[in-house]
Amino acid sequence: MDTGTAYDRPQPSYRKELTEVGAGTPMGELLRRYWHPVGMSSTFDSTPSKVKALGEDLIAFRDGQGRPGLVYPRCAHRGTTLYYGKVEERGIRCCYHGWLYDVEGHCLEQPCEEGGGARRDRVRQPWYPVEERYGLVFAYLGPPAKKPVLPRYDCLEELAPGESVEADDSSIGSGGPQIVPCNWLQHWENVVDPFHVPVLHGSFSGPQFTAQMGIMPEVTFESTARGVKVISLRTLEDGKVHRRVTEVVIPTLRVVPDPLVQRFQKVESIGWTLPIDDTHYRIYTAGRVTERGALGKIRSRLGGRRWHELTEEEHRQFPGDYEAQTGQGPITFHSEEHLAASDKGIALLRRFLETQLKIVAEGGDPAAVAFDESGAYVRFDAGNYLVDAARAA
Amino acid sequence: MDTGTAYDRPQPSYRKELTEVGAGTPMGELLRRYWHPVGMSSTFDSTPSKVKALGEDLIAFRDGQGRPGLVYPRCAHRGTTLYYGKVEERGIRCCYHGWLYDVEGHCLEQPCEEGGGARRDRVRQPWYPVEERYGLVFAYLGPPAKKPVLPRYDCLEELAPGESVEADDSSIGSGGPQIVPCNWLQHWENVVDPFHVPVLHGSFSGPQFTAQMGIMPEVTFESTARGVKVISLRTLEDGKVHRRVTEVVIPTLRVVPDPLVQRFQKVESIGWTLPIDDTHYRIYTAGRVTERGALGKIRSRLGGRRWHELTEEEHRQFPGDYEAQTGQGPITFHSEEHLAASDKGIALLRRFLETQLKIVAEGGDPAAVAFDESGAYVRFDAGNYLVDAARAA
Amino acid sequence: MDTGTAYDRPQPSYRKELTEVGAGTPMGELLRRYWHPVGMSSTFDSTPSKVKALGEDLIAFRDGQGRPGLVYPRCAHRGTTLYYGKVEERGIRCCYHGWLYDVEGHCLEQPCEEGGGARRDRVRQPWYPVEERYGLVFAYLGPPAKKPVLPRYDCLEELAPGESVEADDSSIGSGGPQIVPCNWLQHWENVVDPFHVPVLHGSFSGPQFTAQMGIMPEVTFESTARGVKVISLRTLEDGKVHRRVTEVVIPTLRVVPDPLVQRFQKVESIGWTLPIDDTHYRIYTAGRVTERGALGKIRSRLGGRRWHELTEEEHRQFPGDYEAQTGQGPITFHSEEHLAASDKGIALLRRFLETQLKIVAEGGDPAAVAFDESGAYVRFDAGNYLVDAARAA
Repeated sequence: MDTGTAYDRPQPSYRKELTEVGAGTPMGELLRRYWHPVGMSSTFDSTPSKVKALGEDLIAFRDGQGRPGLVYPRCAHRGTTLYYGKVEERGIRCCYHGWLYDVEGHCLEQPCEEGGGARRDRVRQPWYPVEERYGLVFAYLGPPAKKPVLPRYDCLEELAPGESVEADDSSIGSGGPQIVPCNWLQHWENVVDPFHVPVLHGSFSGPQFTAQMGIMPEVTFESTARGVKVISLRTLEDGKVHRRVTEVVIPTLRVVPDPLVQRFQKVESIGWTLPIDDTHYRIYTAGRVTERGALGKIRSRLGGRRWHELTEEEHRQFPGDYEAQTGQGPITFHSEEHLAASDKGIALLRRFLETQLKIVAEGGDPAAVAFDESGAYVRFDAGNYLVDAARAA
Repeated sequence: MDTGTAYDRPQPSYRKELTEVGAGTPMGELLRRYWHPVGMSSTFDSTPSKVKALGEDLIAFRDGQGRPGLVYPRCAHRGTTLYYGKVEERGIRCCYHGWLYDVEGHCLEQPCEEGGGARRDRVRQPWYPVEERYGLVFAYLGPPAKKPVLPRYDCLEELAPGESVEADDSSIGSGGPQIVPCNWLQHWENVVDPFHVPVLHGSFSGPQFTAQMGIMPEVTFESTARGVKVISLRTLEDGKVHRRVTEVVIPTLRVVPDPLVQRFQKVESIGWTLPIDDTHYRIYTAGRVTERGALGKIRSRLGGRRWHELTEEEHRQFPGDYEAQTGQGPITFHSEEHLAASDKGIALLRRFLETQLKIVAEGGDPAAVAFDESGAYVRFDAGNYLVDAARAA
Repeated sequence: MDTGTAYDRPQPSYRKELTEVGAGTPMGELLRRYWHPVGMSSTFDSTPSKVKALGEDLIAFRDGQGRPGLVYPRCAHRGTTLYYGKVEERGIRCCYHGWLYDVEGHCLEQPCEEGGGARRDRVRQPWYPVEERYGLVFAYLGPPAKKPVLPRYDCLEELAPGESVEADDSSIGSGGPQIVPCNWLQHWENVVDPFHVPVLHGSFSGPQFTAQMGIMPEVTFESTARGVKVISLRTLEDGKVHRRVTEVVIPTLRVVPDPLVQRFQKVESIGWTLPIDDTHYRIYTAGRVTERGALGKIRSRLGGRRWHELTEEEHRQFPGDYEAQTGQGPITFHSEEHLAASDKGIALLRRFLETQLKIVAEGGDPAAVAFDESGAYVRFDAGNYLVDAARAA
C-alpha cells in the first residue's frame, strides 16, 4: 500500500502571532513600538500621496513650511479622502468642504461654518508622528506614551572621508519588484538563512553573487540583544578566511553586507523590511556611498537585466529570493515545515520574537526601544571581513 | 505626549439600515415600495439585456408586441440565463430547452415536453411589473399588494410651447462615469449639501459651474412631506437675489435646477439616484428641453472635456463630485463623521429616512406613495429664481 | 394584484453534496475513490507544471528515468513551491535549499545538512500515485487502502486495423474554452439530456451538428450499474432508425458518440469531465482514430470558426453548450429548478450519485471500482447505430 501520499493530510495553518501586523494583533502591537520608514523624504511633498504600512492606509504630504505630515485618509468631517486634498502653507485641505488640518491633525479652518468654525478645536484628524533621517521619513504608529527615540545606526553615522548616506525605496534585496506579495517574515527569515546562498544563488541559478559566495559556508548562529547574528566562514584559495556577519535587528532590520563582497568592511547599508500588510512587504534601504546612485547597483541582475526585465521563463530557470519567498505563498504554512539543523537562525529568530511578544503582552518594553538618545545608538557586528584562519574560529 | 494620533482608534462602521438596499433589508424594503427607472425605453428591445437594481440582477427585453419585460435571469426550468434567450412575438425563450415566457412570466411553451408541456401553467418565471414614461422604463420590485401608482411630476408634465421631455442614462450629476462605485446615499446626501458648491466646485477646482455659484450662499433647510428642501440665497452685483431651491424627494429623486443657471425658472430636470447595489449607483434623468440632446449638455466639463477624457492627474488637481463622493469609500463610515451646522440638510434627510423606515417596519405606507392618480401628481418648489432682496427672506 | 413576481422569493441554494469536490466533502471523497486524468503524457516532462484537480493544486513532472511524478507543491522543508524546482535524474529538487524528492516523495538529498541529511528519511513530500494510459496520465487522489485498478475501456482497447488511440486536452465537448468556469456536474448532466440537442443545437442556433440531430428524438432513459444510459431514436427519411446511445459512467465519464454521426459504429471516444475545483472543469478525451489529429476535428464550429474565435455578439446569437451551462451560474441553484419529464436522465443520474455517496459514507466500495484487472474492463453500449424500425423498439 502507498505510504506518505497527499491524501488526508491535515489542514495547513500559519502562526498568526508571528506574521499578522494589523492594529491590535500581537505582532502588530510589537511592531508598533518602533519607528518604521514609510517613504523617502521626496515622497513627502506638496502632492498628497498614498502610503500603506502595518495594514494602515495613510496619506503623506509636506506642508508649505517643509513639515512632513502623515494622516488618516478619511477627512474627520465626512470621510472624503485627503488624497484629493490640497497641500497649503499650514497643512492639508479636504476638497469637499475645505476643512484644513495641520501635520498634527489640528483643524485650522472650516470655511463652510460660520466664522470659520467656532468649534473646530473639537475636531482632530487622526495623524502619526514622523521624523526624517537618512533620506527617509520614519513614522511611529504606536501608543503615544511608549514612543521611543528614533535610533541612529553606527554604519550610517560614522562616515569615512568622501562618504555620504543615501536612501533607496526600490526594495533592494527582495530579489524582485518594489512591492512583494508575501508576508514580511518570509523575507526577514531569509536574512538569517545563510545556507540558501550556495543553493538558490549558487548551484541552482548560477552564481548570482560571486563565485566565492557559492562555497558552502561554516556557520555559527547567535542570539543577540536585538535579534540574531549569523557568522559564515568561507576558506578562500589563499588560505585566508572570509568571515561574513549578517544580522537581523528588531523591528525589521536586515543588516546584510554587500553580497558581491566588493570590499572587506563593516556593513555598508541596512534595510527595513516594512510590512505593508499581512501579505505584502517592501524594503527601504539606507547606506554609505562614495557616489550618488551607488546603492541601487547592489541589486541582483541576470545578464545585466533586472528582475522585471526577465521573462517568466527566465524566472523559472533562474529563481532567486523573490521566487523562493513568494513561492512559500502569501503567508507560509508553518504547520507543514520540517526545520533542520541548517535552519537554526530561523528558530532563534522566532524564539526572539516570541520573547518580545510576551514582554509586550505583559506590559513591558520590548528589546532595543530607548527613551533617550544615548540608548538609541546601535552598533552592528555585521560586515565582510578577511581574517586569518586562526582568528576566524 | 502626542494627542489625537491615529493609534487605537475604534473600528469604523456604517449605518447599514440607511445604506444597504438588498431584498429584506430595512432600506431595501423601503425603496421597494416605489417605482424606480431601470432603463431607457430603448434599453428594452429585441435583444435581452442585463439590468441591475437594488442588488437584483434582471433581464430586460421587449416582446414582438412592444411590451417591455423584466424577468429574473435564471430560467425557471434549469437555471440558464435568459440573457442568451431569444425574444419572440409572445415573449422570451430560453436557449437550453426552449421554454417560452411572456412579460409576466407565464410559461407559454415547453417544446421538449409532450404536447408542449401539459403542466406548464404550474411554472412561473419570476418577473416584475414595468411601466414606461418620460422615455424611461420604471419597475416596481416591491410587494404586489403595495404597488403604488407611478407618479407624474409637474416639471415634466407642464410644458411650454416648443418644449418636450427627453431622458438620459449617462448619470448626469454624478460628476463621473455612468456607473459610480459608491453607495447611492453618498450621492443623494450631496444634493442637500449646498455648502460644498463654493468649495469643491469653486475655490478648489476653479468655478466648475458659474462664477455666481462660487459665492458662499445664505442657506435655509426645510423638511418636506416628501424629503428635504434647500434654499440658497446669493446676492448678485445688481442687488437682486438669486434664490435657488433644491429638493430631494423619496425614493431617490434629485431635483436640482440647472447649476449653470442659464435661465431663471422652475427646475428643468429630475434625476433618479438608482442604487445598483450597496456600493454602486447610477442616475437616470428626465428633463424638459427645446431641442433634442440638450439634457446631456448640462454635464460638467473641464476645458470642454468630460470626466473620462481627463487624466488621473487632472482629476486630482480638479476634483469634483465623483472624487469627493467615491473618496468617502464604497460606503462611508458614519461612525467617524463630525457633522457641523452646514450639514443640517444631511441630518434632516437621515431623520426623514429613519421616519420612513419606522413606518414600513410598523406596516404602514411610507411618504408619497399614492394608490390613485390624483395623489400621484408631484409639484416641486425647486428652481433658480431671481427675486428682490425683500422677497428673498 | 400581480402574481408570481420576483419579490420575496426564497434564497436560492445548491446541493453541496452533489457538486463540491474538495477533500473531505461527500462528493470529493466519492470521486477520490477513482482514477482521474490530470494531464497529457506530454504534460509530464522535465519542466515542472501546475496541475489542479478536485480542488487540489499539484505539481507534475517526469524524472530523468521517465517516471511521471505528481506532488504537493509546497516543499516539505519550508514550503517553497516546487514549480520553481529543477527536475533531475532521480526526482525534483527545490530551488530554495536543494532538497531532492523522488516521484514517491522520498527525500533523497538535503545538501545544506551535514552529510546530506542524516534524518532525511523522516521527511516525505506528499505525493499521489500516477499511471499512464491512452496518452494521458491518471492520478489516484484517494485513500491508499482503496486504490482500485486503473480501468480499461473496450472502445479504446479493441482497435480495427489502422486505428490507434490518441488523447486531447482541449475540452472537446465543452462547447467553449479549455477551462470552463462552472461546476462539472452541469456539464455531466448535459450528457444525459438528449432533448436540448434539437433546441440549443438545432432550432436555436441553426444545426450545430447535423440536420438529422435536429429531429426531436424518442428517448428512453436507463439506469446502469455504472451510471445512466440514454437511447435516442430518430426515424430517418428512408424509414430506417438512427439509434443513438449515450452514457455517463462513474466517476465523470462522458461516453458520447460522434454528434456529427460520420459513421454508424460503437462510440469512438470517451471524455473525463475533470472537476478542477467546485466552479471549474475541463475535459480530457481519448479516442480511436485512423489519422493523428482526427480527434480535435469533432469540436463544434460556427462557420468554420471555433468558440474563442467568435465575438460575444455571435455567442449570444448562436449559444451552445458553453453558454447554456455557464449560464446556469458557477454552481446552479437546484432549489429553483423545475424538472420535467424530459429531465428524467438528470433525475436518474442524481439518484445514482446519491446511492454512491451513501455507499461511501457507510464504508463500502462505490460502483465500478475494481481491485483486479479482470473487473476493470469496461464495455460500453454507447454508439450511433442504424437499425430497422422493428429492431429499434
